[in-house]
Amino acid sequence: MSKHYIITGCAGFIGSQLVDRLLATGHRVTGIDNFSTGQRRFLEGALSFPNFHLCEIDLLDAAATQAAFKGGDCVVHLAANADVRFGPSHPGRDLHQNTIATFNVLEAMRAQKIQRIAFSSTGSVYGEAQIIPTPEDAPFPVQTSLYGASKLACEGMIAAYCEAYGFQSWIYRFVSILGERYTHGHVFDFYRQLKTDPTNLRILGDGRQRKSYLYVQDCIDAILLGMNKATEKVNIFNLGVDDYCEVNDSIDWICNTLGVQPTRHYTGGSRGWVGDNPFIYLDTQRIRALGWSPSISISLGVIRTVEFLRANEWVLESRL
Amino acid sequence: MSKHYIITGCAGFIGSQLVDRLLATGHRVTGIDNFSTGQRRFLEGALSFPNFHLCEIDLLDAAATQAAFKGGDCVVHLAANADVRFGPSHPGRDLHQNTIATFNVLEAMRAQKIQRIAFSSTGSVYGEAQIIPTPEDAPFPVQTSLYGASKLACEGMIAAYCEAYGFQSWIYRFVSILGERYTHGHVFDFYRQLKTDPTNLRILGDGRQRKSYLYVQDCIDAILLGMNKATEKVNIFNLGVDDYCEVNDSIDWICNTLGVQPTRHYTGGSRGWVGDNPFIYLDTQRIRALGWSPSISISLGVIRTVEFLRANEWVLESRL
Repeated sequence: MSKHYIITGCAGFIGSQLVDRLLATGHRVTGIDNFSTGQRRFLEGALSFPNFHLCEIDLLDAAATQAAFKGGDCVVHLAANADVRFGPSHPGRDLHQNTIATFNVLEAMRAQKIQRIAFSSTGSVYGEAQIIPTPEDAPFPVQTSLYGASKLACEGMIAAYCEAYGFQSWIYRFVSILGERYTHGHVFDFYRQLKTDPTNLRILGDGRQRKSYLYVQDCIDAILLGMNKATEKVNIFNLGVDDYCEVNDSIDWICNTLGVQPTRHYTGGSRGWVGDNPFIYLDTQRIRALGWSPSISISLGVIRTVEFLRANEWVLESRL
Repeated sequence: MSKHYIITGCAGFIGSQLVDRLLATGHRVTGIDNFSTGQRRFLEGALSFPNFHLCEIDLLDAAATQAAFKGGDCVVHLAANADVRFGPSHPGRDLHQNTIATFNVLEAMRAQKIQRIAFSSTGSVYGEAQIIPTPEDAPFPVQTSLYGASKLACEGMIAAYCEAYGFQSWIYRFVSILGERYTHGHVFDFYRQLKTDPTNLRILGDGRQRKSYLYVQDCIDAILLGMNKATEKVNIFNLGVDDYCEVNDSIDWICNTLGVQPTRHYTGGSRGWVGDNPFIYLDTQRIRALGWSPSISISLGVIRTVEFLRANEWVLESRL
């Protein structure tokens, strides 16, 4: 059945891919973006659909957000400050762009009588988890990043709105996502470095940080499956692959794809930055029980990301 | 050793008792309150101390907050919207008075190079806990109230500031607190009802809600002990008694103290209001391991509260 989706962060990496998927399957989409990091070129396909409506507004503008949500059946709230790394340089950014923006989204839903929301949270909410792979009901975590703390704040508000106002929610705790339209993170940084100087690569930390990555289309499959199949008031799912790599493995795949052999310079230490978690690896049994499994391995995800960046070098300039 | 404490919410129930305790033990105190619910009369004693400085500002005024924190050694952040019950009527209140105000406190600490903060959180952050008594590392909870969600957001920010900026924190998850200067909650509501009409009492829910209450001086003992003895970067403690009562028990104690026998009218249902938790009962082994234990039982706490209200009926009018 065709629905009217409100997608925040519609010009972002995941958002624009989700918009394309929804439009291709016959849904109506209102996309919201302030283009602070979103890319207009990611919406070129979407804008050719009559069922797509683009609202260029900021979610911190509560009145504009309420107006933009008019007529929606459900919301997928992806807009966020997604860069965990630079939290300590501007601690207010996570509060405003994540916590307060999410409050405005919830209030806009209430104003427009929309009661279904999917939300992109993060494995960072587990802090430095003691149980690995980490399940959704892991012991009550201690936050280690402003980013994770702000996403946890959003999760809490969403769950409380479900209790107070009869909302239903699907909260997805992601590992890092890779794939086409990826515009920040380690593959992006390494690609940019190697384009400037293919003989040297500077690596934050010791390169031994273990990471788990999910391919963007697998992520979108999971988001849509959860919304269709999970029927609790508050549905919380980890999203990730049953595998992990070290940053060093990822560098191997990137360099092989590009045919370069740089000297690797490590800044040292087990953490790339303050709040960097040396290992995020999530237990995904809960979403797998609904019939989902990822189709693309970490290595193939990295390779596809590098190939996307090579074919779309304009993206590098857009984020300088 | 004498220290300079910054106490937010200094004119509140717990805050004013803490101020009196600190001044009596030779410390310097800067008290901050916007008097939205704080009571000037609670500070009559404090204002006679030369070591007490009162700042009448709102924590939502970031610049004023930074100025007020000048010279402090540590912060006890008690100011909050503490009324969990009316969350759904004004959902922005918890966001502003709890989450954003706490962010401003943390930024004021950073500006003034203060690195130690104690924070009043709540057992409500456990949502409807599956493990009772609930330990600090209970399974990752799902929030059921906007109040609990906002306190969880504050906890997360505080922990992230510890990681990012070298802060040290003591986070206390309270059950409800009773005792002298108590100005909201069920004993207050019942007392006010019985003063108007000693023959009838309206009770939200079925009266079977189990609750655990801690006496205010026991709470203050625990706050100060934790700050003196717990040395982790982030120290999280439940505060409560190893006992609980039903709302009906509490009504018995109140009525016996007042010598009244009202007809009880129940609104019905297991929850008094949306987000009301039918049972908050916390495992306090962690704080007990430091040598703390409560000295006053729930029944005596209720009786002392009733006696305070009877001797200070001006409090009833102040909250109409």
